[in-house]
Amino acid sequence: MLDTAKIKIIGFDADDTLWINETFFREAEKEFVQQLSYFGDEETILKTLYDIELTNMPLYGYGVKGFVLSLIETANKLSLNSIPANRLALIIDMGKQMLAKPVNLLEGVEDVLAQLSSKYQLIVATKGDLLDQQRKLQKSGLLRFFHHIEVMSDKNESSYQSLLQRLSIQPNEFVMIGNSLKSDILPVVNLGGYGIHVPFHTTWHHEEVNHEINSPLVFKVEKLNEVLLLLK
Amino acid sequence: MLDTAKIKIIGFDADDTLWINETFFREAEKEFVQQLSYFGDEETILKTLYDIELTNMPLYGYGVKGFVLSLIETANKLSLNSIPANRLALIIDMGKQMLAKPVNLLEGVEDVLAQLSSKYQLIVATKGDLLDQQRKLQKSGLLRFFHHIEVMSDKNESSYQSLLQRLSIQPNEFVMIGNSLKSDILPVVNLGGYGIHVPFHTTWHHEEVNHEINSPLVFKVEKLNEVLLLLK
Repeated sequence: MLDTAKIKIIGFDADDTLWINETFFREAEKEFVQQLSYFGDEETILKTLYDIELTNMPLYGYGVKGFVLSLIETANKLSLNSIPANRLALIIDMGKQMLAKPVNLLEGVEDVLAQLSSKYQLIVATKGDLLDQQRKLQKSGLLRFFHHIEVMSDKNESSYQSLLQRLSIQPNEFVMIGNSLKSDILPVVNLGGYGIHVPFHTTWHHEEVNHEINSPLVFKVEKLNEVLLLLK
Repeated sequence: MLDTAKIKIIGFDADDTLWINETFFREAEKEFVQQLSYFGDEETILKTLYDIELTNMPLYGYGVKGFVLSLIETANKLSLNSIPANRLALIIDMGKQMLAKPVNLLEGVEDVLAQLSSKYQLIVATKGDLLDQQRKLQKSGLLRFFHHIEVMSDKNESSYQSLLQRLSIQPNEFVMIGNSLKSDILPVVNLGGYGIHVPFHTTWHHEEVNHEINSPLVFKVEKLNEVLLLLK
């Protein structure tokens, strides 16, 4: 059971936990596949893109700008550098549209944050591009609920450890809530913190975890508002 | 005079204060001008690029990835979308090389940090891409001198104010050292903190300040090791 008496801080992932994100990447990929249909079938295009994204990850990190650069590289590769520049201009525009998208909160988010913020300190711990995440938080109207915002270049055990140190708390005083087992739950639980997994219907292949997690520190809920039952 | 008895924390800018950065952007622009020479003279190319960079700044922020996307957009614009895709592939490669560049420390940096870190808490306060700045700090070998690293999406009064709040210090307990009057000195001094300006030979047009600053809170040195005379 989750020992709520000890809990001091609750961390929330942002993309696909507080608001829709992965859906926009899937839509962009769909448009990209159509634009490139002359140069390959859907499977080939997406496989090539995914390989290029993974290769570029250590250099570009997460976020829209790196994604757009990988789309352009994929288009060049599949077209053997024969793609017209105006097609690439469309890809750049698509990226700008992604960065300017409104923020669509997921169901129950405001209510959950309002209730939990009266009892606990809440923080956001998110990956991705610093400016883009700050802009989304501004647009979301949720900033008032959070004590601290942490944009991390990667979410692994060592980055959570520095975060907890900076917050001056022990792992068992911390709960992390998020949609990604790999980024939000496993590293926190490995340190001895709690994780509440709230799956989103779409998960990027790179974030998938294929084994079951059996740990008394991990909880799974179907909808975000069920966390209120765990964190009374 | 700088009242060192009160100073608790010294902030360092990173790019062009601790290590060379702007030089790499100027070199990349030079290469870009050569690649595009068929479509315009140097002045036209650089002016178009600068305008596109400024327009994109609110969406892309600072850093190499946004710069590369703006280079591609400039190439498309100047060539009326007739630039061959293999030229754009070269631009993407150039960006990757920028991200993978070794870190070249500026003169005296290690000595200055070693001496100051024995008397004050040192932090880094830098703009740019989160992952890129973290990588440069790792490569620099300077992490051991710093108590805290702050990567900011922009360096203005309000972002420095939140930083000081998070560090739990008053403005007059803080000194910021950097090469940009606009980003490192003015916003800090406007809050009531101290600024030590260490000019770098190359400044991006966007960071230039055209008026003199007369304030007892601002100091200017020619070389970084002169800060040791101010911060005894």
